[in-house]
Amino acid sequence: MTEGQATSAERPVYLVEPWCVREPELRLDRLAQSESVFALSNGHLGMRGNLDEGEPHGLPGTYLNSFYEQRPLPQAEVAYGYPESGQTVINVTNGKVIRLLVDDEPFDVRYGRVHHHERVLDMQAGTLTRHVEWTSPADRRVKVTSIRMVSLTQRAVAAICYEIEPVDAAVRVVAQSELVANEALPDGGKDPRSSAILDHPLISEEHVANGTKVLLLHRTRQSGLRMAAGMSHQIAGPESMAVDTESSPDVGRLTVATRLEPGQKLRIVKYLAYGWSSQRSRPALHDQVVGALAGARQTGWDGLLKEQRTYLDDFWCGADVEVDGDAEIQQAVRFGLFHVLQAGARAERRMIPAKGLTGPGYDGHTFWDTETFVLPVLTYTSPGAAADALAWRQMTLPLAVERANQLGLSGAAFPWRTIRGHECSGYWPAGTAAFHINADIADAVVRYVDATQDERFEREVGLEILVETARLWRSLGHHDVGGVFRIDGITGPDEYSAIVDNNIYTNLMARRNLQAAAETAMRHPDLADRHGVNAEEAASWRDAAAAMLIPYDDRLGVHPQSENFTNHARWDFAATKPDHYPLLLNYPYFDLYRKQVVKQADLVLALHLCGEAFTEEQKVRDFDYYEGLTVRDSSLSAQTQAVVAAEVGQLELAHDYLGETALMDLHDLNRNTRDGLHIASMAGAWSGLVAGFGGMRAGGGRLRFAPRLPGGISRLAFRMWYRGNRLRINVTAEAACYELLEGPGLKLSHHGEEFTLADEPAELPITQIPARPAPTQPVGREPAPRRIDPHGRAPGGG
Amino acid sequence: MTEGQATSAERPVYLVEPWCVREPELRLDRLAQSESVFALSNGHLGMRGNLDEGEPHGLPGTYLNSFYEQRPLPQAEVAYGYPESGQTVINVTNGKVIRLLVDDEPFDVRYGRVHHHERVLDMQAGTLTRHVEWTSPADRRVKVTSIRMVSLTQRAVAAICYEIEPVDAAVRVVAQSELVANEALPDGGKDPRSSAILDHPLISEEHVANGTKVLLLHRTRQSGLRMAAGMSHQIAGPESMAVDTESSPDVGRLTVATRLEPGQKLRIVKYLAYGWSSQRSRPALHDQVVGALAGARQTGWDGLLKEQRTYLDDFWCGADVEVDGDAEIQQAVRFGLFHVLQAGARAERRMIPAKGLTGPGYDGHTFWDTETFVLPVLTYTSPGAAADALAWRQMTLPLAVERANQLGLSGAAFPWRTIRGHECSGYWPAGTAAFHINADIADAVVRYVDATQDERFEREVGLEILVETARLWRSLGHHDVGGVFRIDGITGPDEYSAIVDNNIYTNLMARRNLQAAAETAMRHPDLADRHGVNAEEAASWRDAAAAMLIPYDDRLGVHPQSENFTNHARWDFAATKPDHYPLLLNYPYFDLYRKQVVKQADLVLALHLCGEAFTEEQKVRDFDYYEGLTVRDSSLSAQTQAVVAAEVGQLELAHDYLGETALMDLHDLNRNTRDGLHIASMAGAWSGLVAGFGGMRAGGGRLRFAPRLPGGISRLAFRMWYRGNRLRINVTAEAACYELLEGPGLKLSHHGEEFTLADEPAELPITQIPARPAPTQPVGREPAPRRIDPHGRAPGGG
Repeated sequence: MTEGQATSAERPVYLVEPWCVREPELRLDRLAQSESVFALSNGHLGMRGNLDEGEPHGLPGTYLNSFYEQRPLPQAEVAYGYPESGQTVINVTNGKVIRLLVDDEPFDVRYGRVHHHERVLDMQAGTLTRHVEWTSPADRRVKVTSIRMVSLTQRAVAAICYEIEPVDAAVRVVAQSELVANEALPDGGKDPRSSAILDHPLISEEHVANGTKVLLLHRTRQSGLRMAAGMSHQIAGPESMAVDTESSPDVGRLTVATRLEPGQKLRIVKYLAYGWSSQRSRPALHDQVVGALAGARQTGWDGLLKEQRTYLDDFWCGADVEVDGDAEIQQAVRFGLFHVLQAGARAERRMIPAKGLTGPGYDGHTFWDTETFVLPVLTYTSPGAAADALAWRQMTLPLAVERANQLGLSGAAFPWRTIRGHECSGYWPAGTAAFHINADIADAVVRYVDATQDERFEREVGLEILVETARLWRSLGHHDVGGVFRIDGITGPDEYSAIVDNNIYTNLMARRNLQAAAETAMRHPDLADRHGVNAEEAASWRDAAAAMLIPYDDRLGVHPQSENFTNHARWDFAATKPDHYPLLLNYPYFDLYRKQVVKQADLVLALHLCGEAFTEEQKVRDFDYYEGLTVRDSSLSAQTQAVVAAEVGQLELAHDYLGETALMDLHDLNRNTRDGLHIASMAGAWSGLVAGFGGMRAGGGRLRFAPRLPGGISRLAFRMWYRGNRLRINVTAEAACYELLEGPGLKLSHHGEEFTLADEPAELPITQIPARPAPTQPVGREPAPRRIDPHGRAPGGG
Repeated sequence: MTEGQATSAERPVYLVEPWCVREPELRLDRLAQSESVFALSNGHLGMRGNLDEGEPHGLPGTYLNSFYEQRPLPQAEVAYGYPESGQTVINVTNGKVIRLLVDDEPFDVRYGRVHHHERVLDMQAGTLTRHVEWTSPADRRVKVTSIRMVSLTQRAVAAICYEIEPVDAAVRVVAQSELVANEALPDGGKDPRSSAILDHPLISEEHVANGTKVLLLHRTRQSGLRMAAGMSHQIAGPESMAVDTESSPDVGRLTVATRLEPGQKLRIVKYLAYGWSSQRSRPALHDQVVGALAGARQTGWDGLLKEQRTYLDDFWCGADVEVDGDAEIQQAVRFGLFHVLQAGARAERRMIPAKGLTGPGYDGHTFWDTETFVLPVLTYTSPGAAADALAWRQMTLPLAVERANQLGLSGAAFPWRTIRGHECSGYWPAGTAAFHINADIADAVVRYVDATQDERFEREVGLEILVETARLWRSLGHHDVGGVFRIDGITGPDEYSAIVDNNIYTNLMARRNLQAAAETAMRHPDLADRHGVNAEEAASWRDAAAAMLIPYDDRLGVHPQSENFTNHARWDFAATKPDHYPLLLNYPYFDLYRKQVVKQADLVLALHLCGEAFTEEQKVRDFDYYEGLTVRDSSLSAQTQAVVAAEVGQLELAHDYLGETALMDLHDLNRNTRDGLHIASMAGAWSGLVAGFGGMRAGGGRLRFAPRLPGGISRLAFRMWYRGNRLRINVTAEAACYELLEGPGLKLSHHGEEFTLADEPAELPITQIPARPAPTQPVGREPAPRRIDPHGRAPGGG
């Protein structure tokens, strides 16, 4: 996954506030970005922040998790094992639309005069609020306020409270609240990173209008999925109102016409409900949506708001991060946590896509991003959501076993990219060959179990995943004549190398996978037996793990990312023009693959996730070496570089990388936030702070911290869950204070020193470390600096 | 390039005769194979051996060298540098058709009764003759004889002499001689190795009927090429004949109606002429074809036959190979030489496709096959054709330079597969990455210049190719910190490995390329200067060549095909079912690439072509090692294994491999002769005999032989050209006799012993060598044995 980086400094689109993202004026030039930033989702239902009136728009979008259409995956030269069709997320029936006519003139911000236009995403309330004051071309002035929510408590439900009032003179207003299926979408362009946009993917099956309620039912053409969207309304306004509803195959409409005197308001509460199924009948789905609407109406608008806030209060009390000294990062880490939660909260045994439900980028697929970058955050802040995401992987195991079998391997080969579990990658060297995703999933299982001691999960979900992925590794690797266990011909995280031998990240993660499977099987012999694991198989996993090859370049004194990597020519960075990044859009894969150039942290990701395999000195040398090669053409890279930079004492550099991951979407750094948010980067803000400056590492029941702050951050405090304990760690330049907010207490480690945390907070000192020279990055690829100027603004960030 | 291998023994389709391929009865089950075997071509115009009456057919085919249509090359995931469209050969206007009505019943071998049906390809006459005796469903018996030729002397011309006579009673006959454009073609199926067949590729521009002459002009839709096909007739028969011609956009027709008494004949001589151009106007092309028809008529049928035989006599007197003891091989080597000549004779600065002009396989593309396997034969038997083929490569240099530039490389990157010079490969790991094609072309230049001392060619064609390819290698490789020159991330000949470092074949061939460019530039400093080569650049080529890395596995005592190859897991041959070959149709590339399994000779090809880089002992060890890994899923492999087996003294094994390459198409071993002949395998029969059992090697002005025969061949004699000398070498088990048929004489070497050959033949003894144990092949992939039984038949071969 790759993006182009923006460099020009522009006036900020959003104000920097600790709990809100506020757009103080409507920026039509950033409309599509804002639609992603202001997207609301509960992980099941997602709505982009499109304007209520539908137009103008960057990209209209309403998504249901795992509701997709098939599309062909053509190949100039077909070969065995290529997937024949892909899956792509589709824009489902749009229930956000409320059009308004003011004295017959449509309310449209492109016409007339906008006096005031403000939108606020409130991360404590879980709402998007909009205030507009507008004069029509015919000189009628109105105020429009809308509050939108996608309920975190009622999974099928969204709601909008829409109010209109005249400002100085009476107006005749007509409001049209709609459901619109098969909206026309703008062209996707040719960038392979954008979604394949499908025209008219929905076929009408039923439409009903009844009272203030309208339902539209559709199914997809190829994938054969059925969906229903319904709306229901509560209307308050002058006594004389004409209300009408109608439906047609692709449009449902409620129309309210009235005349408002100054001081009068028209208020429409629109309840929306969605459902989909690959199996349930039309009547069943119909009733399901009608039921959800009834439930929402019963709760009422104020009730929904209250539930939402309670849900979020609960979340923040175990997840909040406070940052003093860098207000942008403070906002960004909460923004990131909010969107990570939105992506996973109610996904409930469905996948978490790379873009969440905020846009159609990457066809709506999930990748290893989820397990490697997003689930660590959920594991320690909202563990149930992490368990659900892994339970979804388990549900897809039959497909992964089938895929492994097709590839001539044992166990399970999870897809590189997918919506429903089928491999949808059209380029195998950077798809199927990237087997590390299997170890990444296994690692997420190990991490979750370590963090929660959820034995039921381990037995019902975790063990099977560990066993099947261990079987994969055992069959993918082999012992050479010297007895070393090799994993040849695969692709590691860095997508500027492919089909390599003994990628260190992959080998270390496979080792962990094999060990964990063997240990877990030993812990649950009854279950292991049911999965066909005997003592010999478990022994063969332990042996392969113990014999795993980890190449080392003695000549340079660094670890090669994979065998032979450090013998390759270095990329000629000096000759590479700034506008030739991302490189993959300007150079052929063959050239990238055979040279030392790194798209994204790979060996450095191993330094983070498998730190126990490296000495401190190796970490320093390796990090320096790969800094000189890493161009960060993937948005996944900066957070890992932030974490490892902090670990090796490059605190200012870590702060710079943190800025890049945290502000990826708020500043649209890669110029593709329009296609959806980078959920992994959103998670990266948390990781950069907690794993980076907090030095948090966990595993084997041990939770360790090694906090140390950069100059620009005067205080960092974060909350997290570990084994039933809710903790708060407050870090300053001099000391860290550990506090148990809830739970039985636990052993922790602070900079290598173990201590027990119980009722009493523990304050421990932080020693300064001598500065080392900073490593250099490829010319022009340095992260933007976050040095704080006297007024507290970060010049590079905003 | 890959094929499935046939194993079942069937009754022979063709009789074994030294100078002819005779089909004694019509084998409808092998119709498409016979259309390829009986194809006639002069390298410019090719006609499959379709029946005169058009139906039944396996695959109708008439081809003009380099006349192609564009087709899309779709990709599920697009990346920089992928070609966007491909080129595919198309079936042009069919001029072979002569339909016959016998008392109103169409002559069709599927109806009525065929008493006799014989077809004979005569390799001395250069004709395809057909004799049929047939009784119609209405009981009318006729004899039909046709002789078809594609002229080797008049490049645009083909001709057919068609005769009908009644056998016992008078018949009314109507003969319709046709030109048919846009014939319906059978479906191509899903095998990626077949051609993409395009429907109705030709758009009519003009059609004219005049006297016995008809012309059809068409152009292609996408590629914008224009072609013309014309026919003209001489008719002899009873006095009362009705002759009529007509034309429509896609059909031209001459109709002759008459009544034949027993003893009377109707004889139609049909002259055909073809032309095409990307630039010339419709009138110009029209006139060109009319002119060619006039020339052919002027020469007349007998004149054309005579020219053809003279041309072939000339060829055979410098090319013939005689084999005693194995009659199948005797026939096959002449069949192979004949088709190699047909593919290249009059190509004249156009490419030589992998299938010649005998079928649409591989989209009609040319590959490295031509330079590596076909041009060696032409260089020593018909050197002008080899020069022409290389001159075509030079004509495409601007495209190759552009491609190199697109790939970020210096010099020229020739396309892996193409018709007109544009890269048409849709899968870069086995296309663009196979850079060895550039060294293969350079090697063909070096070989041609060595064999002919053609200084004008060297100055006008060769030098530029050598310089631009040397530049490519210099930019593709780099010196590592130890000073070694590495070529990383490329693909060698073996298509079951890809994107490897330091493939030995590639590195050795690149070394030769760099050395030859430096030497040739030094010989022609004026020209070198004109191509921008200075002393520094030439020095950098010499240095890179001298520092070239040739990996060696000390542990196993063999050369790894590429770095790390011998550390990979061996393919599990024992677990691979016989029907799972060719492997690429049943296993994913990723699995093939990361294991020790070899599709086709790669390191062993280096043993043949770069023998000077290996000791005798290394050759023995390396050959044995790779025999155990090579599955020959490519038809290109057996000939190289034959040559090297002979060199290391495995003479019986060499004979077996020779049988496989020589009988590839006559026995349809890979079950895909229907798509066209394997021209490289055809050439392989010569190479297996001359380079294999003759031990012929040439280079640096030295022509060497090391003849040694297997038990099943009692005598081998071959003719060849070298530096203006025409030689004949006659080999028996005991001795070799070297004879100078023409030319100034030269120094030769016999088993390492130098001698001068002038007017007197030289007879030199051959010592027997002790037998070594035969190497083993992967189970089930042994070549069919050619041990001769007492009756002289080879059980495995026919």
